[in-house]
Amino acid sequence: MKKTEPAPASALPRGFRFAAVNCGLRKPPNLDLGLIVTDEPAAAGGVFTQNRVQAAPVLLCKRHLLAAGARTRAVIVNSRNANCSTGRAGMQAAEDTARAVARAAGCDPEQVMVCSTGVIGLPMRVEKILRAVPSLARDAARSARDFSGFTRAIMTTDTRPKWAAARCHLGTRTVRLLGCAKGAGMIHPNMATMLAYVVTDAAIRPSVLQRAVSKVARTTFNAITVDGDTSTNDTLLVLANGATGNRVVAGPGRDYRRFLAALHKVCHSLALQIVADGEGAKRVIEIEVRGAPTFTAAERVARTIASSPLVKTMFAGGDPNWGRVLAAAGRSGVKFDPERTDVYLGGLLACRRGTAHPFSEKLAHKRMMRELVPVMVDLRAGKGRARVWTCDFTSDYVQINASYRT
Amino acid sequence: MKKTEPAPASALPRGFRFAAVNCGLRKPPNLDLGLIVTDEPAAAGGVFTQNRVQAAPVLLCKRHLLAAGARTRAVIVNSRNANCSTGRAGMQAAEDTARAVARAAGCDPEQVMVCSTGVIGLPMRVEKILRAVPSLARDAARSARDFSGFTRAIMTTDTRPKWAAARCHLGTRTVRLLGCAKGAGMIHPNMATMLAYVVTDAAIRPSVLQRAVSKVARTTFNAITVDGDTSTNDTLLVLANGATGNRVVAGPGRDYRRFLAALHKVCHSLALQIVADGEGAKRVIEIEVRGAPTFTAAERVARTIASSPLVKTMFAGGDPNWGRVLAAAGRSGVKFDPERTDVYLGGLLACRRGTAHPFSEKLAHKRMMRELVPVMVDLRAGKGRARVWTCDFTSDYVQINASYRT
Repeated sequence: MKKTEPAPASALPRGFRFAAVNCGLRKPPNLDLGLIVTDEPAAAGGVFTQNRVQAAPVLLCKRHLLAAGARTRAVIVNSRNANCSTGRAGMQAAEDTARAVARAAGCDPEQVMVCSTGVIGLPMRVEKILRAVPSLARDAARSARDFSGFTRAIMTTDTRPKWAAARCHLGTRTVRLLGCAKGAGMIHPNMATMLAYVVTDAAIRPSVLQRAVSKVARTTFNAITVDGDTSTNDTLLVLANGATGNRVVAGPGRDYRRFLAALHKVCHSLALQIVADGEGAKRVIEIEVRGAPTFTAAERVARTIASSPLVKTMFAGGDPNWGRVLAAAGRSGVKFDPERTDVYLGGLLACRRGTAHPFSEKLAHKRMMRELVPVMVDLRAGKGRARVWTCDFTSDYVQINASYRT
Repeated sequence: MKKTEPAPASALPRGFRFAAVNCGLRKPPNLDLGLIVTDEPAAAGGVFTQNRVQAAPVLLCKRHLLAAGARTRAVIVNSRNANCSTGRAGMQAAEDTARAVARAAGCDPEQVMVCSTGVIGLPMRVEKILRAVPSLARDAARSARDFSGFTRAIMTTDTRPKWAAARCHLGTRTVRLLGCAKGAGMIHPNMATMLAYVVTDAAIRPSVLQRAVSKVARTTFNAITVDGDTSTNDTLLVLANGATGNRVVAGPGRDYRRFLAALHKVCHSLALQIVADGEGAKRVIEIEVRGAPTFTAAERVARTIASSPLVKTMFAGGDPNWGRVLAAAGRSGVKFDPERTDVYLGGLLACRRGTAHPFSEKLAHKRMMRELVPVMVDLRAGKGRARVWTCDFTSDYVQINASYRT
């Protein structure tokens, strides 16, 4: 899961260019500004934070997505400053950034997506970004396929860049999907935000792409939790520029299903990489809930378990304490009969029909210390089924988040 | 807030007896079984866990409360074992316990409340309790006013016993209220549960008492959070035996308001003692939300802020990072306009109308390191107002909850 080697050139979808630079928001030589440009306009689909407090660039992206539809040309991302709770000046900064990129890339400002990640409430020093845009755009236009630089420019407290690739056959063509992501929950000091970008050279109708993005997000990025805190800047953007020349995916059917599967593969991998790199995390916990009345109910139970500090700390120590899992399920708000419920820890049945089932605590402990630990709860109350991923909760999380800003 | 001295004899309401013993559930000489007996039958009011998974004694108490109404005679509490997820044997154990106490105290089993706290899913060794009941009841009948022993018998990972007292004038009489509590959230190893008991020699109609208990619980015990985990055994019981001889409080009016204020005082103190003794806690954080559309909305925003790990860790280090507070409010599900919102940390205005307001970080840090830190969020969207209390989230919490059971 720990991909630190850069993506091979063969994984890069056709017609996309990447560039990254230090523009002075972070200390040089740390990259802090990344750019994606597509040679031909791309269909774009997006999913954004549900937080009531939304950063200026999030509001701008949503507006541009509606306005530009199938004609997106560029994505620019800065780290260090979230440009959130920054008032009118913040929105002005995002708009100025879009305009500068549009000028350099020769497109409309509405064809540019702007993203930010970093501290909330810090005035945006947009002049640094504006100054860097022309050379960044020149880099991109020249040769640059610096995907690796881009993945590092968007990092905040991430310990490693995160990327994933997939291919699929649409008609007679092979299309490529390449994604990258940063972050996990909200990160000190207010290094907010999960950002994820997937680019593909597939041709797909914008409305169909948006449907695919929303569908995939629900079971990947929206099915992970590090600390339960939704950031103000969360963004997933998928750009499809059609450079492969496949017949446009225009609705349901075999091609759509294949594209969906490939998109899911990329997003699933990125989502798990985020959890694995969660602050202080040593392992990934997969919470699967079966037998719920509905999918939504299963999701709710799984999320409640996954965000319980008691469950998460228990995995830091590898303590097979199934009562905490059952108790968390019980407070999820979903109706079920505890006396029909089974709980499995690391594949071992620990609670059968609501009461203790004999199991080897030693074996369970051993399995719980692995890098990926499955937890399964069967409510025996229906066919709803959902999976959610989280990480263990260690002292390091507290250390990372408690220190006084300097 | 750290009351370690025992309650003075003068604080004890008339007609109540207390006893405690080691019955062998915990290692001697640790007290693990406590008993309250009232000479005359008492009106009882109660509030119980909302968790879908409810321990056998919780189910039994709810049944007895309905059946016995104004005639409750005894409360017996054991620590070490929650008697939860223990199947039919668990319910049998709770019923046997009630019967044994009833026999020893000369009353009906339905006049006995049974409570348990400790590990979930552990078979109940009820024979130890049954063996201890006769001598425990004899102790209580003899002289015993061992309130201090009772407060210690119900402790699990609490670092100190918690009690609070109040008086009020009802008509021409002075009535006494005395309460004690244990726990904070769910505690390792599955030492679940908040338990709280208040006894008073006031005379009050059972339905009126229940109304008062429900009302007070909402703004005290239900307004605190340590780790967001609702236990399977949470119980608040209030017994009023009327030994003072005041005219029965039978409905709204001055006496009711006075009683309510005294009950609130006791419960508020106990609730804050629980938060202050939260696992690993160094300070209490008071989250006040004003200007919400309704009280319920204010409560929801305050609860979301209070249970945010990022907010709670920030107080461990005294970092005046108001963006985390605003972002937590934003994901509460309550509609408000971030651009009208103010945030105060330790009494200092840090965010005005949604953007940074200049303040001394040094002074804010200093205030955030105090024992009680006020946080105020004004949404400017109505008159709803609520307060919630939590504690900071330290590395010690993780240490306490992560260690492998031995």
